[in-house]
Amino acid sequence: MNRKRIEFQPIGTIRTPWRRRGEAPRQTGLAGGAEGTVEIHPDLAEGLEGLEGLERIWLIWQSDRCSRRPLKVKPPFDTSPKGVFATRSPARPNCIALSCVRLLEADAAAGRLKVADVDMLDGSPLVDIKPTSLS
Amino acid sequence: MNRKRIEFQPIGTIRTPWRRRGEAPRQTGLAGGAEGTVEIHPDLAEGLEGLEGLERIWLIWQSDRCSRRPLKVKPPFDTSPKGVFATRSPARPNCIALSCVRLLEADAAAGRLKVADVDMLDGSPLVDIKPTSLS
Repeated sequence: MNRKRIEFQPIGTIRTPWRRRGEAPRQTGLAGGAEGTVEIHPDLAEGLEGLEGLERIWLIWQSDRCSRRPLKVKPPFDTSPKGVFATRSPARPNCIALSCVRLLEADAAAGRLKVADVDMLDGSPLVDIKPTSLS
Repeated sequence: MNRKRIEFQPIGTIRTPWRRRGEAPRQTGLAGGAEGTVEIHPDLAEGLEGLEGLERIWLIWQSDRCSRRPLKVKPPFDTSPKGVFATRSPARPNCIALSCVRLLEADAAAGRLKVADVDMLDGSPLVDIKPTSLS
């Protein structure tokens, strides 16, 4: 089985009100509409053109402050532990997270998006952005 | 802006009928129900427990055979180019892809999932699995 390391370079940074673990909501749906900013590296800003007008987008980001990475976890509303891949726990073998956020404003020229329903810690490295619609 | 490299290690490999670029469908919805197998590294197989019974799961994988990575692309049904982050093109600054596949069978002990609606090339490195439901 191919286990060759995969290297990514962050395309930007996500700014949110959540500074410490425990402050960040467990899910975008529990974020109470909290707003954040996505700052894209200037070399990649052109790649944002066409996002304007979308209602929701996927942010794929690194949950870079996860420490332990257990294979079994107990989600808050479950009675027994389950495999980490059956949960959305941020602490997982590859600490990659997926958030469906509301797009409030897209400014490709400035390399900046305003978004709502943010559930990631401030300063989280952004790996990718995708439309939630199929295009 | 933090551009420190992110390193992931594949958690497994995805086996599909699609061997060459051009054979793989553009979206899971265009895969005609094509079936594939997800093989998880034995050390991580315990993390699959609890997936059984889910109807659909997210596979996050590396589109490792993308070569050019243009910032503007022309999706097949659009008339003009748009920013790559407004599309699901597999060729993007970080070649990471997101597929919502149907879960046919989960065998945690064997580290193996049978799935349908696969749109990735055979042998694609798997980065993560998440439930599509919120848990």
